Amino acid sequence: MSMLQDLYPEDFAHCYGCGRLNTNGLHVKTDWVEGEGIARFLPAPYHMALPGFVYGGLIASLADCHAMATAAGASMVAAGATPGRDPTPRFVMASLQVDFLRPTPLGPELLLRARPTEVGERKVAVEVSLTAKGVECARARVLAVRAPATMVR
Amino acid sequence: MSMLQDLYPEDFAHCYGCGRLNTNGLHVKTDWVEGEGIARFLPAPYHMALPGFVYGGLIASLADCHAMATAAGASMVAAGATPGRDPTPRFVMASLQVDFLRPTPLGPELLLRARPTEVGERKVAVEVSLTAKGVECARARVLAVRAPATMVR
Repeated sequence: MSMLQDLYPEDFAHCYGCGRLNTNGLHVKTDWVEGEGIARFLPAPYHMALPGFVYGGLIASLADCHAMATAAGASMVAAGATPGRDPTPRFVMASLQVDFLRPTPLGPELLLRARPTEVGERKVAVEVSLTAKGVECARARVLAVRAPATMVR
Repeated sequence: MSMLQDLYPEDFAHCYGCGRLNTNGLHVKTDWVEGEGIARFLPAPYHMALPGFVYGGLIASLADCHAMATAAGASMVAAGATPGRDPTPRFVMASLQVDFLRPTPLGPELLLRARPTEVGERKVAVEVSLTAKGVECARARVLAVRAPATMVR
């Protein structure tokens, strides 16, 4: 099985956060595991807020791309498709809420688990939990909507 | 007068979003204008979500650093200091809420206006509005707290 972002159609594969065709990007990758999205990400040394701690904007970016892929996975399952095998539909953020529970240490790999909480045909709500070495550092709630036709060129 | 981020103490000037000493970073700059924070930012061509539109994680990152500086400015005024002249204290995000009102076009310079809505000694709430060519594309509400002693090395 593939990571969900590797199965975005080519037109949707340029995202700075997760596009395989964006050579400057972060390349967030989401694995679909038993109804959840799982992602691992190792921040670069320069992704800092203060020395020793991860930049909050990066955490928001990881939550964005990971939640969009998880929303896509949930919508695929609802439609009878198989995440990680069939093409991944592209969702975009309608809203993002991040609670920073504690400073996230810069150094260890970050683990992001994302769980779809409401799955509609066009809208999917996703909750994301970010942990570092087993300690939860941030939580996000993301509302994803299918990329509207006006965004597709 | 200086941009607020240029007056962060050196230890706090490494942020990926706004640190003048982070050579890989975005270098968000906030000007203090009559009680508001004003920032302008030109996304790079690779800061895209889909072709033609700005990446939502970048918008969250701009809201982060711009709101933190605006929170600092408001706290300085409350303490009798002058933003843009005196050292800027460092705030970090406790929470971030972004509503993406419409897709943000990639190309024009973005304008961010930030307004402190609640100013406490340690916590400041800030509202951010992002416009492109005069059209509001995103709104954020950010809760800023003084960087805790545990984050300072």
